[in-house]
Parts: sequence; structure tokens; C-alpha cells
Amino acid sequence: MRTLTVDLNERSYPIYIGRGIRQQKALFDEAIHGKQVMIVTNDTIAPLYLDAMVDMLSADYKVDTCILPDGEEFKTLDTYGTIMTSLLEAKHNRTTTVIALGGGVVGDMAGFAAATYQRGVPFIQVPTTLLSQVDSSVGGKTGVNHPLGKNMIGAFYQPQAVIIDTDSLLSLPQRELSAGMAEVIKYGLICDVPFFDWLEQEMPALMSLDNDKISEAIYRSCLAKANVVAQDEREGGVRAILNLGHTFGHAIETQMGYGNWLHGEAVAAGSVLAMDLSWRMGNITDEDFRRTVDLFKAAKLPILPPVNMTLANFVERMALDKKVLDGSLRLVLLGALGEAIVTSDFPMEDFNACLTDALEASKQANLAIS
Amino acid sequence: MRTLTVDLNERSYPIYIGRGIRQQKALFDEAIHGKQVMIVTNDTIAPLYLDAMVDMLSADYKVDTCILPDGEEFKTLDTYGTIMTSLLEAKHNRTTTVIALGGGVVGDMAGFAAATYQRGVPFIQVPTTLLSQVDSSVGGKTGVNHPLGKNMIGAFYQPQAVIIDTDSLLSLPQRELSAGMAEVIKYGLICDVPFFDWLEQEMPALMSLDNDKISEAIYRSCLAKANVVAQDEREGGVRAILNLGHTFGHAIETQMGYGNWLHGEAVAAGSVLAMDLSWRMGNITDEDFRRTVDLFKAAKLPILPPVNMTLANFVERMALDKKVLDGSLRLVLLGALGEAIVTSDFPMEDFNACLTDALEASKQANLAIS
Repeated sequence: MRTLTVDLNERSYPIYIGRGIRQQKALFDEAIHGKQVMIVTNDTIAPLYLDAMVDMLSADYKVDTCILPDGEEFKTLDTYGTIMTSLLEAKHNRTTTVIALGGGVVGDMAGFAAATYQRGVPFIQVPTTLLSQVDSSVGGKTGVNHPLGKNMIGAFYQPQAVIIDTDSLLSLPQRELSAGMAEVIKYGLICDVPFFDWLEQEMPALMSLDNDKISEAIYRSCLAKANVVAQDEREGGVRAILNLGHTFGHAIETQMGYGNWLHGEAVAAGSVLAMDLSWRMGNITDEDFRRTVDLFKAAKLPILPPVNMTLANFVERMALDKKVLDGSLRLVLLGALGEAIVTSDFPMEDFNACLTDALEASKQANLAIS
Repeated sequence: MRTLTVDLNERSYPIYIGRGIRQQKALFDEAIHGKQVMIVTNDTIAPLYLDAMVDMLSADYKVDTCILPDGEEFKTLDTYGTIMTSLLEAKHNRTTTVIALGGGVVGDMAGFAAATYQRGVPFIQVPTTLLSQVDSSVGGKTGVNHPLGKNMIGAFYQPQAVIIDTDSLLSLPQRELSAGMAEVIKYGLICDVPFFDWLEQEMPALMSLDNDKISEAIYRSCLAKANVVAQDEREGGVRAILNLGHTFGHAIETQMGYGNWLHGEAVAAGSVLAMDLSWRMGNITDEDFRRTVDLFKAAKLPILPPVNMTLANFVERMALDKKVLDGSLRLVLLGALGEAIVTSDFPMEDFNACLTDALEASKQANLAIS
């Protein structure tokens, strides 16, 4: 088992990474201070892992469970309300501990419930997808979607511990493994060239779930994220670099409807767009751009936007009309490989050209297939 | 105008108290850092004060408004959702400032909306009732009710400033003035005997809204609350003393249905019960008990529980059966006048006797009237 710390003074917490550790009771005992536990999970994860966790914890705690429907479309204020109702019906008090057992959606909602149940109770993240293990379970972003925008309702609220069991990846569909890999590659791009080099070499081993390699990838990803979060917990500055590819990606996700493109898939295509723009601005070499595209391909991720999107869709979804006019559309781009910058200073013709060319390439690729 | 500070390090903020200061733009300018403002208010307050505030702020900011239905029964997750929708429809971003213009319900809900809109935006409290001026607008408790419990959903989230315009009391119904006075008297009881003495002398002037006197009462109340909150922001310890009378009071409020007994009225009757128990335990003199009852009477507040409640109602609402058994029912009592204690160590026979006697007295008083 490997351990690292997210350093946030009195809100610091450990991240544990290892095989089978969701059944290491001592890790939970250290993070639970009361006698009540509420495990929040979803109907995909529950049949796999819930009974074992309930059995393990019932020896020492009053354990209740709340099983949510699986899917981003249920990441709503209504579903959040059902977690609150579960806590109240089972008479949990301010000393309860919420455990989030599942992927990013479960973690975000259970975390927000913990942040706001009786004005805040402790919680533990037990992320089961690669995406949540390397990204959403670390850093304290919690919340739900609103019909008018993703993650518009939420709080910064740090967990007591993050317990990453790499064995839970064994049951993960390949498409979701790939989606998680998009965020892993992102850390190489924004701040860690040696990690990027290593990923190029090890991607086949990672995609076949070599445990040592996948543990290393998760460790390096969490380390990168923990460092950034420690510098800027509430995203007043540098934390924004973690959003490489996300502004383009959000446009794709919302245009396509939540759940049709996975978040990681949209981030992959979005990151390629951000790299493309960075390349057009002369910030990265032809070679680095090609390597990036190849790495996303090796992780079986999309490198082009959806064939049925248009430039106008992107402009609208990114609220460009207004934001560009007052110079407030800030994008995460690369100043060089391994060096992210947050800037609203990019040539509009490059921006338009990179989208137009990518959309055209998407159409051509689609024609070639059909 | 008088000013005091709630000292919470980087979350410190000023409380301003004065006549007409809800129209002193400079106080708002100091607390607003972006260009967008959302004023949240209710349909009772809006016709009185909203237009003037919109006019004042529109000179420098994009001002939008959200008018909620008035009443504790609307302090729900649904109403909170409508604030979020208003913010999103008006395209407010992370630099917006939320202004809560109204009583405790508006402040609690607007504060919770600010705490959780895009993971937290600044907000300003402009409390218009005595209760919210001396209690709920100070200290950062925000939230909504759940059908299964009051204030069960919420966050600790401090405002940028509290702007208390004493002129807004001129439009307050007398019943609500009395309700606020319950919390004012509470500060004297728990921590400030000279203030208690002063209140005995000045209650007639306070009830007729003598401005200098009411300003002094608000100032002393806010000072007491700010001191307690500065010691214990998240109610891990001493902050609990602010709940004198509230455990009995909550039982009354929930039994009677939200809104039938005002919060302050339930706190008054609850405080008399807590004083009665403290007196039975020998902690306060006959004289101090009598003075307390007289002071609540002078503020036109109820000193007895509702005539149609029973001991069983209290036992059930306070979950006494379970909590007393495991020693977890903690009450705020007085160790002496001006000295609150939080304890689960009280004789059950005194507890039962004080409730039984009070309920009997309530019946007799009712018979005498009818």
C-alpha cells in the first residue's frame, strides 16, 4: 500500500492506494470518530462491494446504506435530497460519517450531502473508477448538476481520507478505464513531462491493468493533484490548470447530453483541441502534438469532437459571444509540454481554425468508416 | 452608526448598526467585489425596501432579484432550488454577490444559496427583523428545513458584512418585535448580567422602539454573539450556550407546526422551562427566576408552553426516551444568572416536574381566560 497526504493544514488528509484495501478496516477506523456510518453507493456498485463493506463495519458501527440510481443524469438536487432523507430516517446525528463508495457521481453527491448534513459531517471517499481515483475523489470538490449547468451547486469540502482500492478496477468496463486515463494523461501534459514519457511507454500495460503500473499511475496522478490543490484549495488561481481540455469538453458533454459522451472522453477530445490551439500559437512542437494525439489513441480515447457538432455549437456552449467580447473566456493551454498556462490571450483566428479543422476531420473520419 | 467585528481571522467581517443604513451605498461597495448582485428577499419585504435598494445599486452593478414567498413553511430545498435557478437564468458567475434582504428565513436560505452556488460566492446580510438582526444574521449558520427536521440541511458560511438598519423595525409587527426580544433577553441570561439589568429597566422603551435604546440592545446582543462565535465557529463547544431554551422550543415549534408559534415565542417559553429546571436544581434564586419571567412578560412573550401539549409530546419531540437513556440529551441550563452551562446531568424528576407543572399552569391560565 502507498500513502500520500493532501496538505491543507487542519484539513489535511491521507490518500491510500493499494490492492484490496477497501476491506482494510483499520483505514476506516482511523477516519471514523462516531458510532454511525452511512454508506452511499449506486445500483451498479452495490451488488459488487456493498455487502462486504457493511459486514466489515457492522462489527463496530451502526451501518446504514443509501443506494442511488447509477448515472450522471441522476446527479441532481432531487437525488441529493434522497440522501438527506436516508440520513434523517435512520436518525443519523452530527457525529455520523458518510462513506462514498462508487465513481465520481457518487463521490460528488455523497460529499455534498456530508458537507451540508447538519452543516457538515465527516466523509470518506472510496472511489471505484479510475476517473474518480485520479481526479474527483481528491481535492474536495463536491456538488450536483442543475438543468442549466454542470456542477453549479456544490461546496468545497475535504474528506477525512481517500481509500483507493486498485482491485475495484478489475470490474470496470474498458470504456470507463479509458475515460479515467484521459485525466491521467492530463497530469503529464500540464505538469510532469517524465510522467508523460513513462505513460507513452507503459500505456499497453496500463490498459491491461498491470497492478504495479496502474498503482504508479494513480500515485503520480494523485501526487500532482494534491500538489496543485495544496497551493490553491478553492480554485482562486493555479488550480484552474487541472481544467485542461475541460472548457471544450464541457461544450461537448452538454451538447451531446450528459452520459452520451463520458466526461473523460470529452476531456480527451477537448485536450487535443487545447493542444492544437497551443501548437498553432507556436507553444508546442509538431512532435509534442503528435505524441499527445498518439497517447490518447493508445488509451482508446476520442481525439476529435463529435461529428454532429458545429463551430456554432461550441461558440454557444462556451458562451463565447459574450465572454470573448469582454476578454473573459479563459482557456487552459500549454506554454510548453508539461507547462500549463491559463490565458484569455489567444488569437481568435487560431481558435476558430482549430475547431473548424477538427470538426472537418471528424466528418472525414466518419465518412471513411461508413 | 455603530460598528463591530466578528473576529474569525480571514473570515472576519463587520456588523454595522444604524438608522437608514440599508441605503448607504458605501457599505455595500466595500463588500461587493464583482459586477453582479442578486438580491434575495420575500414578498412581504419586497414592496417595502426592494426598489430603493435596486435603484441604489444599479448605478454600479448588474442587479437581479429573487422574491421568495414569505414564511418558515417555504424554507425548503425546493425554494433553495429556485434561488439557484434565478442565479443561473440571470447568468451569474463566481464573482456575483448575494444580498439577503429580509428576516431569518431569507437570510438562512440566501446564505445557503451563496455557500453553494458554484461552490461559494460572497454574500451580505441585510436583516430586517429584530430576530435576524440580533441572532440569525450573525455567525454564519445557513440552511433550510427538511420535513423530518428543522435546519437539517445547511452550511457554516460567513457573510462579507451584516448591515442592520434599525429603521426597518418600524414596519415590523409587534408580535415579531417580541419574538426578537426573546433572543435579546437570552444574551442577558447566558452571559451578561448588567445587560439583563439594563433590559429590565428599558423594556418599555425598547418595546416602543426608542431608537437609541434599540440600537444599544442590538449592539450588545451582536457583541455577545460575535464573542461566542469567534471562540467556536462550528459549534464544537461553547457556541451551544446560544441555544438556551431552543431544545424545549424546537419541541414546541415542531409540535405546533412551523409558523404557528414564532421561533422567538417558542424560545421564550423554552427559556422559562430551562430557567425553571435550573431553579429546581438550586442554580438560580427564586428572585432571579421571577425576574426572568417578568422580563419575558414585559416583552409580551409567552412564558408557558402551549395549552394543548402534553408531557408525552415533549418526550417524543425531544427524543427523550432514547437520548436520556444513553445520557446524550444535553440541555443548556444556567449555573447562575448570566452563566450558561451545557449539561446532560440533571435530575429526571426535576425535568418531569418542571414540564408537568408548566403544562398544568398553562391549562389553568387558559381556563381563567375562557
